[in-house]
Amino acid sequence: MTHPWKIIETRFDPNRVKAAESLFSIGNGIMGQRANFEENYTGESLSGSYIGGVYYPDKTRVGWWKNGYPEYFAKVLNSAFWIGVEVKINGEPLDLHTAKVLDFYRELDMRHGLLIRRFTAELPNKVKVEVEAVRFVSMVRTELGALSYSLKVLNGDAEVELMPYTNADVKNEDANYDEKFWDFVEQSALPSSNYVTMRTKKTDFSVSWFSQYEVAVNGKLSNIVFSPVEKHAWVGASTVLKVQKEETITFYKYVGIASSLNHHAENLAKAAQEVAVEAQKAGFAALREEQSKAWEEKWAQADVEIGGDDEAQQGIRFCIFQLLQTYTGKDTRLNVGPKGFTGEKYGGSTYWDTEAYCIPFYLSTAGDKTARELLKYRYNQLPKAIENAQKLGFTDGAALYPMVTMNGEECHNEWEITFEEIHRNGAIAYAIYNYIRYTGDRNYLAEYGVEVLLGIARFWAQRITWSEERSKYVMLGVTGPNEYENNVNNNWYTNYIACWCLRYAKESMEWVKQTQPQLYAEIVKKTHFDELNEWAQWIDIAEKMHFPEDKERQIFLQQDGYMDKEQILVKDLDPAQRPLNQKWSWDRILRSCFIKQADVLQGLYFFEDNFDIDTIRRNFHFYEARTVHESSLSPCVHVILAARIGDMDKAYELYLRTSRLDLDDYNKEVNEGLHITSMAGSWLAVIQGFAGMRVRDGQLTFDPKLPKHWTGLSFKVNFRGEIVEFKA
Amino acid sequence: MTHPWKIIETRFDPNRVKAAESLFSIGNGIMGQRANFEENYTGESLSGSYIGGVYYPDKTRVGWWKNGYPEYFAKVLNSAFWIGVEVKINGEPLDLHTAKVLDFYRELDMRHGLLIRRFTAELPNKVKVEVEAVRFVSMVRTELGALSYSLKVLNGDAEVELMPYTNADVKNEDANYDEKFWDFVEQSALPSSNYVTMRTKKTDFSVSWFSQYEVAVNGKLSNIVFSPVEKHAWVGASTVLKVQKEETITFYKYVGIASSLNHHAENLAKAAQEVAVEAQKAGFAALREEQSKAWEEKWAQADVEIGGDDEAQQGIRFCIFQLLQTYTGKDTRLNVGPKGFTGEKYGGSTYWDTEAYCIPFYLSTAGDKTARELLKYRYNQLPKAIENAQKLGFTDGAALYPMVTMNGEECHNEWEITFEEIHRNGAIAYAIYNYIRYTGDRNYLAEYGVEVLLGIARFWAQRITWSEERSKYVMLGVTGPNEYENNVNNNWYTNYIACWCLRYAKESMEWVKQTQPQLYAEIVKKTHFDELNEWAQWIDIAEKMHFPEDKERQIFLQQDGYMDKEQILVKDLDPAQRPLNQKWSWDRILRSCFIKQADVLQGLYFFEDNFDIDTIRRNFHFYEARTVHESSLSPCVHVILAARIGDMDKAYELYLRTSRLDLDDYNKEVNEGLHITSMAGSWLAVIQGFAGMRVRDGQLTFDPKLPKHWTGLSFKVNFRGEIVEFKA
Repeated sequence: MTHPWKIIETRFDPNRVKAAESLFSIGNGIMGQRANFEENYTGESLSGSYIGGVYYPDKTRVGWWKNGYPEYFAKVLNSAFWIGVEVKINGEPLDLHTAKVLDFYRELDMRHGLLIRRFTAELPNKVKVEVEAVRFVSMVRTELGALSYSLKVLNGDAEVELMPYTNADVKNEDANYDEKFWDFVEQSALPSSNYVTMRTKKTDFSVSWFSQYEVAVNGKLSNIVFSPVEKHAWVGASTVLKVQKEETITFYKYVGIASSLNHHAENLAKAAQEVAVEAQKAGFAALREEQSKAWEEKWAQADVEIGGDDEAQQGIRFCIFQLLQTYTGKDTRLNVGPKGFTGEKYGGSTYWDTEAYCIPFYLSTAGDKTARELLKYRYNQLPKAIENAQKLGFTDGAALYPMVTMNGEECHNEWEITFEEIHRNGAIAYAIYNYIRYTGDRNYLAEYGVEVLLGIARFWAQRITWSEERSKYVMLGVTGPNEYENNVNNNWYTNYIACWCLRYAKESMEWVKQTQPQLYAEIVKKTHFDELNEWAQWIDIAEKMHFPEDKERQIFLQQDGYMDKEQILVKDLDPAQRPLNQKWSWDRILRSCFIKQADVLQGLYFFEDNFDIDTIRRNFHFYEARTVHESSLSPCVHVILAARIGDMDKAYELYLRTSRLDLDDYNKEVNEGLHITSMAGSWLAVIQGFAGMRVRDGQLTFDPKLPKHWTGLSFKVNFRGEIVEFKA
Repeated sequence: MTHPWKIIETRFDPNRVKAAESLFSIGNGIMGQRANFEENYTGESLSGSYIGGVYYPDKTRVGWWKNGYPEYFAKVLNSAFWIGVEVKINGEPLDLHTAKVLDFYRELDMRHGLLIRRFTAELPNKVKVEVEAVRFVSMVRTELGALSYSLKVLNGDAEVELMPYTNADVKNEDANYDEKFWDFVEQSALPSSNYVTMRTKKTDFSVSWFSQYEVAVNGKLSNIVFSPVEKHAWVGASTVLKVQKEETITFYKYVGIASSLNHHAENLAKAAQEVAVEAQKAGFAALREEQSKAWEEKWAQADVEIGGDDEAQQGIRFCIFQLLQTYTGKDTRLNVGPKGFTGEKYGGSTYWDTEAYCIPFYLSTAGDKTARELLKYRYNQLPKAIENAQKLGFTDGAALYPMVTMNGEECHNEWEITFEEIHRNGAIAYAIYNYIRYTGDRNYLAEYGVEVLLGIARFWAQRITWSEERSKYVMLGVTGPNEYENNVNNNWYTNYIACWCLRYAKESMEWVKQTQPQLYAEIVKKTHFDELNEWAQWIDIAEKMHFPEDKERQIFLQQDGYMDKEQILVKDLDPAQRPLNQKWSWDRILRSCFIKQADVLQGLYFFEDNFDIDTIRRNFHFYEARTVHESSLSPCVHVILAARIGDMDKAYELYLRTSRLDLDDYNKEVNEGLHITSMAGSWLAVIQGFAGMRVRDGQLTFDPKLPKHWTGLSFKVNFRGEIVEFKA
């Protein structure tokens, strides 16, 4: 059922429980929760409750250690299961794994940020029960999770036992050495409230979960008394109610979740308690209203409407919803994790995805300030990026940002990526440029940007090699965005963005020098900048860089030697061989011409204005024919370029691969979580692809080319303090 | 102390216990034992007792899984500690970690295959004791280990408790998931004998250790009675003797070690018992004599005498001794493990070292038959090599031999090696050629060789790529013997040996076709060989292969693009930066010009007669200057080529790096075990380097060029059934 504002599930499929848990995840940028059931569920499930910035440094697991590998990998932490309500009716546990599910309905109300579930089930003891559960994590009260759980016995009077609980004794599925990541600190259970405080091992983050709960009968709050229950790192309370047929029992739970990121560790339980108590005072209906309003405000500046294509409509709203609930810009220590708050996989929180794909989304939908926080995140981590480069043998303030990180330290450990996929540094510089182009906020350079650009430029200046043989600079041993080539020489994209960085760093420094000479002098001193020699060297490199190309075909070559490969096109690949990354051994993928995501095209997308349309067209046709799009970040760039050259059939074909990737679970991996960052790519495909939005000379421009069957496209973007409405 | 026939240690150094345990290891080609002490030792030690062919498939540990990786890594198994004798004097344990060691002497008598240790120690209770321990694993009775342990109390009468035991409850230090690899089967302890039987997990190898023991007082066997003691997987017996000052108590232990590789699992204890009982009947003195004779016979056909250089003399004999006790050719299922029976590290048993370095040694010192068993090992594993290639996408009987193996299955898991270091296939073909050149036994081709060559040729024919761009065949994505380059294109050595394989496979098949047409027809049928097309394709590839070269410098280029690197010479490297593999991150090593072992030179060494002396000289000078020799297999080839071009200073300088690598513990890693296979390189350096031995047209030829200060060099080699003596 395709609803423009809702994701709806109308039947219970035990084989899709984990996938649905991902799809129906809720979050508020600070924390999030998978769509696990409140009542016990003994079937397969991935329990997931995540608090942004609370991580565990899991000891690295490698086959063959290489110098320079990090000691640990920062894992997203599964934390206490605070939504739990055990239900027994006439002594029989309510468990959809053992019950007969008579009907089942679940919706993610994206407009209002609510998760709603209704079902009727027959228990093994023949009791029929109807349930409605509503929950959300509050966008307004960022430390609050709230739920209501209503229950009606349909076929007679019954004894209903309710046992709300928080279980903090949880594990990560993704644990390299099968350890638990949390230590118990303290807990207490009272008749109508309880709390538990835990501390992460090694990192010493503390978190308290404080619950207040109450019960209403037929809509009227009752004074039912619970008896506290405690286990190890587990607090709950139990009560047995005699309910009459068709009587509605509603249980409310208000959970304050406070972490030592924002409070003194000693005061955590109290801080969490305040949140829970205030929430209870407000009451569930008022909180729900508050939540709905907050989301409506977000949509008022972020919505995209597509006419004539319900699936596309639902798909794009799902992307926007997930991105807005993953990152809100309220905490500069956070970033846009590849799975957001929907799963554990990939650990870390920050990849180059943020800068390459997400920044334009947040600029347009959440505003300059939100995007600026993402830039500052990298500024704050500059010292760690310099340390990281030092570990790899670079000197004098050269900075290499990590491939994956939580707190600025590298977490990735596979040499061809960790050490060689250095184009990420380019994307971080490009994001600064992109931000300033969009916002006009050039002063960001003076405040933060220029130091980052300097560290990055120094990295490139040391990373290149002068080839006597060619009398050119070369860049040896890199992996481009196309990870289906490893350790190649002269990756066109990397060489191009490196040279661009060198020039842009110099320009930016010159601007600061001219406009704020005092500040510039301080930066020069602090960074021991040798203006004369370093600038000259940067420009020399940019001017004498080697760029591989195929003169005959008039295309840029992905890397040296690419044309030695057997040139087969994707259309001639046996479908049984795909996806290649599941069917072929790694060496076979590497020596084939097939491309995971086309990095020459990524470069043409970033630097579009530097190339004429025929150059874009020739390269697009060449690389698109060889690209298997086995990265979720791949198709969006192709959509934008295809639209640019007017190939709308191709653009729409590729758009379909990105817009409903998770909703339709193309790759059968939604159970692990959603592809949050690639959702920004879907948004780019619509806005920059079909609407053709660009910023030129401080103006928004559009060049709409809609897919044939779309009857309309309208959306809102934030631009320099105003909400601009586009309609086509 | 440098003795020509012995390795001698004259003081006890607690910090070098593990290193000495490696250096003084003993073996008999079937099993081996590190030089752990018989009595308890509570200091740092690496207990090691190994039985060839008994391995454990340890679950692979990787960071990022790649398609095609093997599920397990076959580990060399630490097995029961059969040498144990606990000693207590007046209740105080004899333990060199707690005692004051007054004097200490240990020798490895290489001439006779004996390990002898003498010491005087003062225990914490002031008892002074003198001990002599002698042990060996028998070259004649391959399932026998024997030891004598004599003890004298020097400063008064005393009560001596002796407790001989076998502890089968052992672990591997190298275990990916910290598991134990053995399951207990059965055990029994009697007053003068005991046994324990264990079975390996997953692989179900069973082994029994059966001990007979007796005590002599002042040289006369006594009828002292022991009381049996049992623990879990631990069998022993204890007795307390009242000994007088200066009285000599000698304890003898005869241990039969029988495995299910050679016996029915049900009969193991009995088989082991027979060995132990027979040994006891013969008596220790006779067994020792038998052992000495067996080793003297080996030396009669394998010795190398070097005049005027005691260190070189000792060094080369140590190499020969270790190689001869690692592999004897008695069991085709065994091979030459990189650490032999001296440590756990690297697991597996078979690397390309065997074919590239060890075959000539065994041909000359142990004879044709022994070397032939090594070839047959690969023949027997051909079906697994074909399977292995299939896993990587090859078809039609193409064979890729594993990088590391025990039973023919790949055990290595790092893509740039496992999938790409495919030159190993070439060495396996080359070993067949080398064997036939040396022995004249061309019929090996018909019996076994040609099928292996066919599988290998088919692999190469599928592994190459036709480059339209160059109108040449290219070989993409390989790692050469120089592992400081990964995933390169057109590694000269790999391309060269591939073409050579293709031609040699065809020639060999033609010879079989001509001489044994019936057999040839059978092979064609069995392998579905398409003579017309496959041969034509092979020759086409060999003729049109691309070989990178530097025309100006007139050298072969290690791979495409090598001259783009910054050309620094090793002599200009800051010594503080070495070894690079400990000081530099992996990407930095990869993009530098520095070479771990020079693969162009490996090719010139293998195919010397195809190149003129100036070509060898030019390439030698170019690559030697860039080679850091961070592989123990590297210097020997350089010695041989340096001698070939008459650069004797260089030859000797490099010889020093190989000949006493372990004895002098250059790399501070002898504690982990010895570099067994690189010892064959030291032998090659002397025989092919300084003596200039070659086989040409079925004749041995020599071109001696001795290091200046050597007063003489003589050695014996087996050649076509005769012992040839060389003297210079």
